[in-house]
Amino acid sequence: MSENAGIAGIRNVTVVGGGVIGASWAALFLARGLSVTVSDPQPGVDDAVRGTIAEATPALTALGLDTSALTARLSFEPDLATAVRTADLVQENGPERLEVKHEMWRVIEANAPAGALFTSSTSGIPATEIATVLKAPERLVIGHPFNPPHLVPLVEVVPGDRTSKETTERARAFYLGLGKRPQVLRKEVPGFVANRLQAAMFRECVHLVGEGVVTMQELDDIVTSSIGQRWAVAGPFRSFHLGGGEGGLAHFMDRLGVGMERHWAAMVKEDVAFDEPTKQLLNEQVKDFGGTVDELAAERDRAQIAVMRALGHG
Amino acid sequence: MSENAGIAGIRNVTVVGGGVIGASWAALFLARGLSVTVSDPQPGVDDAVRGTIAEATPALTALGLDTSALTARLSFEPDLATAVRTADLVQENGPERLEVKHEMWRVIEANAPAGALFTSSTSGIPATEIATVLKAPERLVIGHPFNPPHLVPLVEVVPGDRTSKETTERARAFYLGLGKRPQVLRKEVPGFVANRLQAAMFRECVHLVGEGVVTMQELDDIVTSSIGQRWAVAGPFRSFHLGGGEGGLAHFMDRLGVGMERHWAAMVKEDVAFDEPTKQLLNEQVKDFGGTVDELAAERDRAQIAVMRALGHG
Repeated sequence: MSENAGIAGIRNVTVVGGGVIGASWAALFLARGLSVTVSDPQPGVDDAVRGTIAEATPALTALGLDTSALTARLSFEPDLATAVRTADLVQENGPERLEVKHEMWRVIEANAPAGALFTSSTSGIPATEIATVLKAPERLVIGHPFNPPHLVPLVEVVPGDRTSKETTERARAFYLGLGKRPQVLRKEVPGFVANRLQAAMFRECVHLVGEGVVTMQELDDIVTSSIGQRWAVAGPFRSFHLGGGEGGLAHFMDRLGVGMERHWAAMVKEDVAFDEPTKQLLNEQVKDFGGTVDELAAERDRAQIAVMRALGHG
Repeated sequence: MSENAGIAGIRNVTVVGGGVIGASWAALFLARGLSVTVSDPQPGVDDAVRGTIAEATPALTALGLDTSALTARLSFEPDLATAVRTADLVQENGPERLEVKHEMWRVIEANAPAGALFTSSTSGIPATEIATVLKAPERLVIGHPFNPPHLVPLVEVVPGDRTSKETTERARAFYLGLGKRPQVLRKEVPGFVANRLQAAMFRECVHLVGEGVVTMQELDDIVTSSIGQRWAVAGPFRSFHLGGGEGGLAHFMDRLGVGMERHWAAMVKEDVAFDEPTKQLLNEQVKDFGGTVDELAAERDRAQIAVMRALGHG
């Protein structure tokens, strides 16, 4: 394992919260040569984190990272104040409740070095709200990964009202140096971007399966063999730009915009919810996937790594 | 070039309509060894179709198909009645207007052999409506490709109220033999499945760019580096099933369903349209793509073929 040369000036990372997201971040930080302290008061967290790191190792190896002594720079410190004392970066993955995050960040700010960068993996609470308890709110920015962080390239970097440009840029540079594809958002919106897009499409997915147009497995097959592989390569705007022929996006909007607006109008009226009949229907169809969660996840990860390599993201 | 051995009993295909979709279908049929007659009264259609076939050739070659004499079995016959006389399959790609399709299908049925299979590439008109003019409505089924047909695996096979099971199964077997990933829908719904899903997500895309949260290019980057490459590998249901940990989809719905319903409720209120300010904003941002439509399309096709090979779809 190479010496800890650091990434964008960051050598020591404190991962706050040893759940699935925290442990996946820890695996990636370690594979990139950083020193990691995981802080979580939960009993048994050491074993759980080591387990997640072991599960992530084949993927990290396949991505070309050095996993020969992955846990040599890993330590655990349940006491948060102690855990952040030498941190260059604190990546917080605590529960998604504002009061819990407030309590954590008060302790972090009071005990971390003055130059430490503060990031939160939250998918739901804006930096503006978390930072209200900080004396220096300019130090905190959201670094929201897409699950699992050690594999999927995207990190949404979302500054709050009082986040400094320097903090945002430091976070972006760090995630980029880590091999991720950070994207700084221009405005704080609930759910950020990727989860909003996902939710928007999933609503229609649930509707179509609920109506019996396709089963879950059939819908998944439709996606992987069309828009999925398209959007792995070219996002929705570029895809429509190129789908419109020589006239590009302008031509697409003029020619097909009305048809799409008609779809939109029809969809607004749909009353889609995870009510009991819907849950029951979807849960019954899970058997079509034909494997355990672990088996299917391993299969997905192998395929995704192949795709990432094909795209030069690996 | 190998002899025309046929696919699922089909040797001679008449492609009705020589636009982009029809020409792309023709390229694929030819590369799979079938004989193709293109019927389109438009002057200059021969050159246009040959041009599209030439553009598609590198992709077909990359997919491992024999493109050594691609146009040896290609002919043109502007008169529709003559064009379908020896067809085993008629794949219609006419204008998306019901009265035009009715007129075409009257002529096709009156002149095609009794055993010919009838398919329409329409993205918007259900088989039930097209087939009202047919004496044998059981012969017609929708075979809706995702653009471009020679590259993207999906074909939505959508039977109408009177389509026979045999017709649906013949179409499915033919597209499968052609190397596509056909999916038979269980109900006829406007827009079928893939375009509805795409429209549902695109509404939120337009909203987020309109609100200035991200630019088009930034949103595209977010998609390609997260949900795009996920959905190339595992569709939305499987992704959430695997994202929920050991508890799978049931756990996901119990734990995150409420948050997603909250997103849905927020999105319903959004008034998104391709109005003039929206069009202007999007058209301005096209320059961020950094290339001509042809350049970007070639780049996308190369990347998509790499992804298809990585996934074993090629």
